[in-house]
Amino acid sequence: MGKDNSIEPWHGMAKRDVQDLIGQIPHRMAHNYPDRPAITFQGTTRTFEEFNADCNRLANALLDAGFEKGDRFAALGINSYQYVVIWFGCAKAGVIHIPLNSELKADELDYYINHAKPRGLAVDDELYESVADKFDDWSPVETIVTIDKTDDITGRPQATRLSTFMEQGSADEPEVEDLDADDTIQISYTSGTTSKPKGVMMTHRTLFSQYASSIIDGGLGGDDTAIAMMPLFHVAQMHAFTVADIYNGAHQIILEGFDPGRVLSLIEDEEVTRLFGLPNMYRELVNHDAFEETDLRSLELCVYAMAPMPGSEVQEMMEQFGAGFEIYFGQTEMMPVTTILPPELHDTKAGSVGIPVRNVEVGIMDDDGNVLGREEEGEIVYRGGQVMKGYYNDPEKTAEAFEYGWFHSGDIGRLDEDGVLWFEDRKKDMVKTGGENVASLEVEEVLMEHPDIEEAAIIGIPHPKWNEGITAVVSSSKDDLTEDDILDYVSERKAGFKVPKTVVFVEEFPRTATGKIQKYELRDAYADIYQEPS
Amino acid sequence: MGKDNSIEPWHGMAKRDVQDLIGQIPHRMAHNYPDRPAITFQGTTRTFEEFNADCNRLANALLDAGFEKGDRFAALGINSYQYVVIWFGCAKAGVIHIPLNSELKADELDYYINHAKPRGLAVDDELYESVADKFDDWSPVETIVTIDKTDDITGRPQATRLSTFMEQGSADEPEVEDLDADDTIQISYTSGTTSKPKGVMMTHRTLFSQYASSIIDGGLGGDDTAIAMMPLFHVAQMHAFTVADIYNGAHQIILEGFDPGRVLSLIEDEEVTRLFGLPNMYRELVNHDAFEETDLRSLELCVYAMAPMPGSEVQEMMEQFGAGFEIYFGQTEMMPVTTILPPELHDTKAGSVGIPVRNVEVGIMDDDGNVLGREEEGEIVYRGGQVMKGYYNDPEKTAEAFEYGWFHSGDIGRLDEDGVLWFEDRKKDMVKTGGENVASLEVEEVLMEHPDIEEAAIIGIPHPKWNEGITAVVSSSKDDLTEDDILDYVSERKAGFKVPKTVVFVEEFPRTATGKIQKYELRDAYADIYQEPS
Repeated sequence: MGKDNSIEPWHGMAKRDVQDLIGQIPHRMAHNYPDRPAITFQGTTRTFEEFNADCNRLANALLDAGFEKGDRFAALGINSYQYVVIWFGCAKAGVIHIPLNSELKADELDYYINHAKPRGLAVDDELYESVADKFDDWSPVETIVTIDKTDDITGRPQATRLSTFMEQGSADEPEVEDLDADDTIQISYTSGTTSKPKGVMMTHRTLFSQYASSIIDGGLGGDDTAIAMMPLFHVAQMHAFTVADIYNGAHQIILEGFDPGRVLSLIEDEEVTRLFGLPNMYRELVNHDAFEETDLRSLELCVYAMAPMPGSEVQEMMEQFGAGFEIYFGQTEMMPVTTILPPELHDTKAGSVGIPVRNVEVGIMDDDGNVLGREEEGEIVYRGGQVMKGYYNDPEKTAEAFEYGWFHSGDIGRLDEDGVLWFEDRKKDMVKTGGENVASLEVEEVLMEHPDIEEAAIIGIPHPKWNEGITAVVSSSKDDLTEDDILDYVSERKAGFKVPKTVVFVEEFPRTATGKIQKYELRDAYADIYQEPS
Repeated sequence: MGKDNSIEPWHGMAKRDVQDLIGQIPHRMAHNYPDRPAITFQGTTRTFEEFNADCNRLANALLDAGFEKGDRFAALGINSYQYVVIWFGCAKAGVIHIPLNSELKADELDYYINHAKPRGLAVDDELYESVADKFDDWSPVETIVTIDKTDDITGRPQATRLSTFMEQGSADEPEVEDLDADDTIQISYTSGTTSKPKGVMMTHRTLFSQYASSIIDGGLGGDDTAIAMMPLFHVAQMHAFTVADIYNGAHQIILEGFDPGRVLSLIEDEEVTRLFGLPNMYRELVNHDAFEETDLRSLELCVYAMAPMPGSEVQEMMEQFGAGFEIYFGQTEMMPVTTILPPELHDTKAGSVGIPVRNVEVGIMDDDGNVLGREEEGEIVYRGGQVMKGYYNDPEKTAEAFEYGWFHSGDIGRLDEDGVLWFEDRKKDMVKTGGENVASLEVEEVLMEHPDIEEAAIIGIPHPKWNEGITAVVSSSKDDLTEDDILDYVSERKAGFKVPKTVVFVEEFPRTATGKIQKYELRDAYADIYQEPS
């Protein structure tokens, strides 16, 4: 990247004191709005001052325990107040946060632990038993804390309770020298496509760029009350909303997960102004018994992501909820939001993924690195302040992703004459099921290990609930192999969201001239299997 | 600042493509909102697409003319559409913009030209004659363009018309390699205090930090229609508003200067939502004949700066204008806004300068570098992303300003128990007159050069129109030296805003034990000279 070409810059100042850093966010908010509610979780509300003090306690406890700048600390848990404290505590200490998907099986976690080599691990109390057998294998991990949300927990011989760990730390601002806005502060793993999951390096700077886009383009309000119900281990909930909301001074109510009845009663009781969820969550809310009688007047904005919604449905929902609907589009490598379709464009541009956010430039590129014109189809590529620093310990994949001086999304699309982005297809072989991306290859590899399966292809088929239903198409040497056999086999080895919704048995696969399975033929052939009979 | 400690960062990407840079702003807006009005000037409105094309034309013309990254380009002019094009054109070319106060006399400009050494100069057509004699002396300046706002101009032998110069440049995005967010992009000169004016180095990064603060803390709206009537050569109008508004997608109407009748008719005709001006401008609006009959319902926010307003007056004005009032406080070295007093705090915190913006940390420091507690008085110091890169070619003053790891404001103040900042006094000897800071020393030096003046002190006295009236207290060896003699003498040598409003003749000065003039005694003695008789 070349050397610093600045002229006597910031003479006498530490870099950390002349840059915007993640750890400053709760500190500033605690100074400016000490008594404002920051986070409500399980009925308890912490102010920005209380929240910042907790972040400091964790940061100081980490430093006291010998953690140093650049060390990694992994978090395995569902949504909680503590989860957010861990993120900011790490940021204040200069420790790199590694979010782990709480649905992963213990064996699946091996890869992440061995790749990120975290010195510390925080694990939800409820998940402790499921991974405790692994601790001896996970040699990089020296410090284990359990995220205790109640006092009612049993003994954990190898771990310290998070609350106990934090009590050891001072509530004062930690002093860490040599922090830099270009330091990696989180490594967030992609679901992987044709290769193993890749660790996306996020820095203070790339994330602040996202927060400006989120707040300005997304129209997030400093006086919002938001519900955080999507997983915090995903970059969308964490950075498009939760951290941006704290930076913005908003109040958020963290839920362990999506519960339509609870969401409806919270909207009315807490005068919630904003939701973020999957299309299907909004459908579940509309279909809930309490929907009609719930007072939704406080609601201003409903953001959805991960899957498109038909324009007519969005129009109807905007009436039903009495709020604007926006789609957010992007990917982990972009922190993650790259385009937003605002409410007012849902009539003319429904089906598109919207307008680029202000800190992202969107291009369409052909295979030779030429940037294409309007209405031309090609790979969606990105530039700007939100681009990831690279893939952790993977210069090869990083160079590949940054070919021709743009970040390559792996998505196919086009910009229309108005500069609106239309997502057409994935260049890489993935299934988007619920909020998760599943690499077809990963499930195909498991299937191919089954002794009775000859060949297998994983495809995504439109599904009313899951956006795409992950679907296995298999050929078998045995007549008595059943769907249940196969689903059990996968369930034992992979997280639930990776298990196919349906297995289709075939005798032969459609193939290209070179013998490659033609997945688009399979997707066409089974396009309707998840549709309800009309 | 140490070397880049990042791990294989942005492999294969140019730094300019993974950072937020000033030149990207109009490009992105032109992509996202091509047909939205960006700037209206002298009755002509340019869309973001037209505006970006003009910025590109200037950037490419500069590059074609041989300007290189890091070269300086000075602009001497009052407000115009062209002035903003010059700023963004320079940014796109990597050329450093040097704003010059259009009220400065030709001789006063020598200092800035010799210090900044600009290779190019843009000068308002109307100001050309006043500085043309200087061009031979200003050897660094190779290229001179006149900012032509009409076709009706006479020949300028040494200059090219800006419109002609721009026609030579392509409207396509210029390609400049090696741009970096930490590059200096503007050098904005302070008014100087005890020394010569200092060149504040502003970078892409420090300015983006300001824009986030402006937009989020100031509550600027992307759908605002704003009037830009304060000088664009000042950092407040330029960065707290004009560039922030373009980044935010807002529409601004640029006025050459403040004209109360025109402002009132614009508010009604163009449904203006926001104003930024001096307290006295709001007073002139209220007192204008057309005020009562003007439809002000579109107005949402009135920002004032440079001088406090009594709380009762602000309350009354909020009723009269039907809009919120905010004070912005700060200084050039901070890009410039550090605190904002929002409308809702004008009842309980009137007289304060408000709450720190989110990208600035405010501290109070004693003379030994200790950060003091709440309610303790000391020097106001700052940290965070908005801190300037340093003073151009002045490592000594930079080191002084950054002593003890904070930026020293030169202001005395305190943070109250609620974290609200109260400005108490200037540590340095300055007069705030209108929107300008005048260093007492600079005017005192001129006075002392007068053969008949024995000693002189410049002080600021509360003034109903100018915030402070710049006041000369002099002792003379001659009995027949008159006030007019002195005022004429200063007028010939200094810009109008530096000329005293009144001269007071004294025989002796109040002095400290060490013989230093006690200015606070003078300020007390003449406190009422600008008050209207009651």
